[in-house]
Amino acid sequence: MTTDDPGPWEPTDAFHVFDTTLRDGAQREGINLTVGDKLTIARHLDEFGVGFIEGGWPGANPRDTEFFRRAREEIDFRNARLVAFGATRRAGTDVADDPQVRALLDSEASVVTLVAKSHERHVRLALRTTPEENLAMVRDTVAHLRAHGRRVFVDCEHFFDGYAADPGYALDVVRAAHGAGADVVVLCDTNGGMLPARIGAVVGDVVAGTGARIGIHAQDDTGCAVANTLAAVDAGATHVQCTANGYGERVGNANLFPVVAALELKYDRRVLPPGSLAEMTRISHAIAEVVNLTPATHQPYVGISAFAHKAGLHASAIKVDPDLYQHIDPELVGNSMRMLVSDMAGRASVELKGRELGYDLDDRDLVGRIVERVKEREQRGFTYEAADASFELLLREAVHGGPQRFFRLESWRAITDQRADGSVDNEATVRLWAKGERVLASGEGNGPVNALDRALRSGLERTFPQLARIQLLDYKVRILEGRHGTQSTTRVLITTGDGTAEWSTVGVADNVIAASWQALDDAYTYGLLRAGLRPGD
Amino acid sequence: MTTDDPGPWEPTDAFHVFDTTLRDGAQREGINLTVGDKLTIARHLDEFGVGFIEGGWPGANPRDTEFFRRAREEIDFRNARLVAFGATRRAGTDVADDPQVRALLDSEASVVTLVAKSHERHVRLALRTTPEENLAMVRDTVAHLRAHGRRVFVDCEHFFDGYAADPGYALDVVRAAHGAGADVVVLCDTNGGMLPARIGAVVGDVVAGTGARIGIHAQDDTGCAVANTLAAVDAGATHVQCTANGYGERVGNANLFPVVAALELKYDRRVLPPGSLAEMTRISHAIAEVVNLTPATHQPYVGISAFAHKAGLHASAIKVDPDLYQHIDPELVGNSMRMLVSDMAGRASVELKGRELGYDLDDRDLVGRIVERVKEREQRGFTYEAADASFELLLREAVHGGPQRFFRLESWRAITDQRADGSVDNEATVRLWAKGERVLASGEGNGPVNALDRALRSGLERTFPQLARIQLLDYKVRILEGRHGTQSTTRVLITTGDGTAEWSTVGVADNVIAASWQALDDAYTYGLLRAGLRPGD
Repeated sequence: MTTDDPGPWEPTDAFHVFDTTLRDGAQREGINLTVGDKLTIARHLDEFGVGFIEGGWPGANPRDTEFFRRAREEIDFRNARLVAFGATRRAGTDVADDPQVRALLDSEASVVTLVAKSHERHVRLALRTTPEENLAMVRDTVAHLRAHGRRVFVDCEHFFDGYAADPGYALDVVRAAHGAGADVVVLCDTNGGMLPARIGAVVGDVVAGTGARIGIHAQDDTGCAVANTLAAVDAGATHVQCTANGYGERVGNANLFPVVAALELKYDRRVLPPGSLAEMTRISHAIAEVVNLTPATHQPYVGISAFAHKAGLHASAIKVDPDLYQHIDPELVGNSMRMLVSDMAGRASVELKGRELGYDLDDRDLVGRIVERVKEREQRGFTYEAADASFELLLREAVHGGPQRFFRLESWRAITDQRADGSVDNEATVRLWAKGERVLASGEGNGPVNALDRALRSGLERTFPQLARIQLLDYKVRILEGRHGTQSTTRVLITTGDGTAEWSTVGVADNVIAASWQALDDAYTYGLLRAGLRPGD
Repeated sequence: MTTDDPGPWEPTDAFHVFDTTLRDGAQREGINLTVGDKLTIARHLDEFGVGFIEGGWPGANPRDTEFFRRAREEIDFRNARLVAFGATRRAGTDVADDPQVRALLDSEASVVTLVAKSHERHVRLALRTTPEENLAMVRDTVAHLRAHGRRVFVDCEHFFDGYAADPGYALDVVRAAHGAGADVVVLCDTNGGMLPARIGAVVGDVVAGTGARIGIHAQDDTGCAVANTLAAVDAGATHVQCTANGYGERVGNANLFPVVAALELKYDRRVLPPGSLAEMTRISHAIAEVVNLTPATHQPYVGISAFAHKAGLHASAIKVDPDLYQHIDPELVGNSMRMLVSDMAGRASVELKGRELGYDLDDRDLVGRIVERVKEREQRGFTYEAADASFELLLREAVHGGPQRFFRLESWRAITDQRADGSVDNEATVRLWAKGERVLASGEGNGPVNALDRALRSGLERTFPQLARIQLLDYKVRILEGRHGTQSTTRVLITTGDGTAEWSTVGVADNVIAASWQALDDAYTYGLLRAGLRPGD
C-alpha cells in the first residue's frame, strides 16, 4: 500500500490538514509557550506544509493577541493560513457587542474557528442557557464573521457524546453552523472517549444527514486518536485537526505526523507539498526542542526508535533484506534504520553495527569479545544504544587491542561554593598527561561540570588546537535506580559536535561529576579521532 | 458506553488476554531484563489477571531457560498460564531431533506459542526453504507438541503482508496450524504497517475462510496498534496479544492497558477478574519501575496526565461537573483527576488546587498574587505541575504573607575530588541558622548532592529530630535548554517521604548543586510542616 512517488502536488482546498499545536496542543501538561516559541513553531508547521495553523485565542490571553500581531508582521506564510480560535457570542447578548468576537476580527486572521456546544447537557450546565439560544448563538456568530469576510470553521465540542444523548439536537447544531455559512463543521471528541467504529458510523450519519462539509478533532484518551481521525476520513471527513507530536490536554490530540504519513503513504493521498514528508522527522524533533520536551523516542515514523532493531532474530533477517522488517523505507519520512547494540543482540547485530561504522568484523573471537564487553558494561548501567561514539571507541579498542586515547587523566577536583550573599562559584582543576607532558589546568563555570569541562579544554587546547572546533551541544543526566534518593547511580549522555557532525558519549558513576567526566573524556577523544588524529601521532 | 458494574467474573477460555511483555516487550530499545525482573513482572501481570504470560524463548538464551525454571518453583499463578515461545522445526530435519523444540518441552510450560512464516517471500529469503516444506514444518511441530500434551498457539509472522502478496498461501498456513491441532492461530502485523480497516477486513476473511480460532498481534508503527487490536476483535478475533505499557520493538506493541480498558469499559466485556481494572494504574507504574523506565506521563488511562486539566476554560467547567471533561471516572482504572497549576490556568485552577490542598481562596487579590508569582517562577523554569509541595509552600507564604521556613541558609560548599588512584571523594559543608542558632555541619556522600544532603540533615537533626523519619526517595535532573552543552539551566525534582506520604519539590538554577539545594530546602521544610511544626514554634 505504500508508495515512493506521491505524484504531482496541487495546493487544493479539497482536503484540510489543520494544525492546532499552538492552541489545543499548548494545553499539554508541561508545555508553556512564549510568543517567540509560537512564532518559531508556526514557521516549522508552515514549512512542513499544513494548510491551516490555529494560532490561539486572541483576546483570551495577551500572549495570543500579541502572537497574531507579530505573526502578521514577521511571518511570510508559504503554505498555511493562520486561524484564530474563539467562542460563539455570549448568551442573551448582541454578537456585535461581544468583545470576545471583536477580538477575533481584530486579530485580522482570515479564518476563524468557533467552538460551539452541541451537547444539550453542556449547554445547560456550562453555558447556562437554552438549546434554542445556543443555536441562535451559533447562527449569529457565524453570520457576523462571514459578514466581515472571514472564513469560518465551527468546532462542535463533545459532539459524539452529544449525538449519543440527543442526535436530533446535535444535528441541529451542525445544520445551524452550515446554514449560517460555516465552511466546515468539525466534530470533536472532546473528552477522547470514542473508538474508531463509532466515529466512522457517526461521521457517516452526519455527512448523509446534513450535507455539511465535515471535519474531525480527536483526542487520544482511548489511545485511538490517529485511528479515529482516519475512520472519520474513511466516512467522508475532509478536514483533520491534529497537533505536532500529538501534544494536547490530558493524553493529547491526534498526532499530526502519523496522520499525514498514513494519508500520504497508505492512502496514496497528497496532503503535503512535495518533499515535505521527508522533512517530517526533523520538524517533529525541532518542534519538540522548541516546546522543551525530549522528542518521544517511540513515536511512530519519527521516533529515533521507530526503525531501530535489536532482536538477534530480526537482525539476522535484516542482513538478508531490511524490507522484511520495515513497513516503509524510513527515508520517506526522513528517519533511518538503526541497529541497536545491546545484550539481547547476537553477533549479527554487532557485525551490522560494525559495518555501519565501517569495520568489517569477520573475526568471530573479536565479535565475541565485543559482545562480552558490551554485556559487562550494560550490566553497570552504560547504554550504547544512545551513545554511538562511546561504542565506536569500545569497538576501536577491541580491534586495535589497546586504548585509543590521546590524553590520560591523573586527577581532578571540582569545588562549588554558595556564599552568604547567595552567589555561587564553581572552580575545577584537572591534572592530566598528553603527549608525554603533564598538564595542570583549571577552569571556572556556571556549574561544576561546566567548570570541569572548561578546565579540561584549557588543558588540552594547548596540545590539541583541533578542540577549538569541538563543542558540547547537549547534556543529559539520568538517575538509574529511582527510589534511592540522591544515592542512585548516575548516567550522563553528552552530545558533541564539530560543525559537520554530532556524536553521543556516555558515562556512568554513582557521582554526577565523575560520570560527566567519563562522557567528556570519550567526547573529546572521539572528536580528535574525527579530526584525523591517531593515538601516538 | 462505560459501565460501573462489570458484572460477574467467570474464568473463561472464551476470550484470551495474552501478555508478551516478557518476550516481545523486552525487545524495546532501552529495556534489559534480569531473571529477577521477569519474575517480578510475571507476578504483577498474574495479579492484574491476564490469562496468558509469554515468558520468553527457552533454549534461545540462558536467561529465559532459567526464568521458566524459577517461575515454576517460585510463582503460584492465580490467573495466568505461563507460555513458552519458540519456532517451528528447522527445514529438512525431524522435529523430534530439533533441540529448539526440545527446549520448549523441557521448559515444562503447558502452553507453547510457535512462530511460523506465512509470507512466501519470508519463507524463501529468511528460512531459505520451499513453501511446501514450511507447511510441513508447521504441521509437524504443532502435532509433536500436541502429542506431548501441550496446548499450542501459532503466531503467523507478517501475516497481513503475506495475505496481500498471496492470500491462498497465507490461508494454507492457517489451515495447516489449525488442522494439526493449534488452538489459536494468531495473525501478526509484524512490521506494524497496517491500519484498522484493513485488519478488520482480513481477519473477517480468515475467520470465514478457515474456521480456525483467530488471535491478533499488532505492532504500533502506524500509531494504531490498539485500534488494530479492537478492529480484529470486532471482526471475530477472540485472543489479543499485548504488552504492558506497549513496550516492544521499534515503536512498540499493542498496549495491554488501553486494550483491556476498552474491552471492559467500552465493550462491557469481562476480560479481567473483578477489581483488577482499578489496579491498572498502579500495576502499569510498577512494571515501568521494574524495567527502569519512567512511567509514560501521557499514556491513556494510566498516565499521570491522563486526567489532568489545565485549560482555564475547562477548569471553570470542571468546577460545575467533572464528567463534562472526562470520558470515564478515573477511579475505574485507579487513576485520579488532577488540576494543574500553570500560567495558562486562570484563577479557577488556582482556586481548585487550593481547595484540593485545603485552602479556601476567596480573596481575589490573594489569588491574583499567587497566579502572578506562579507565572514569574515558571518563566524561570520552575514547574509546579510536578512539585505540589513547592506549590503548597508558595501558597502558604502568600496566605500567611511571609516565609514559612524553619531554617535559613548562610552558605555551603561542595568539593568533589578524583584522586590519581581513581577513587572519588565528596565532601560538603553547610552554614545555616535554625531557631536563632548558627549551625555548621559537614557531610560526605557518594556525590556532591548526596554530601550536601547529609551535611544539611546532620546540621538540622540536632534541632529537628522529626527529620529522622523523612527520607529522600527519588531525585530527577533535567537540563532545561538543550543544545547549550553543560551551560544549560538545571531543574531538579526531588521526591521525599515520611513513611505515610510522599511529596515533590523543585529547584532551578544554572548549577545542578544549587538547584538541588533549593529542592532539598523545600523538601525538608514541607516535611517539618507535615510533622506538625509551625514556623516560630
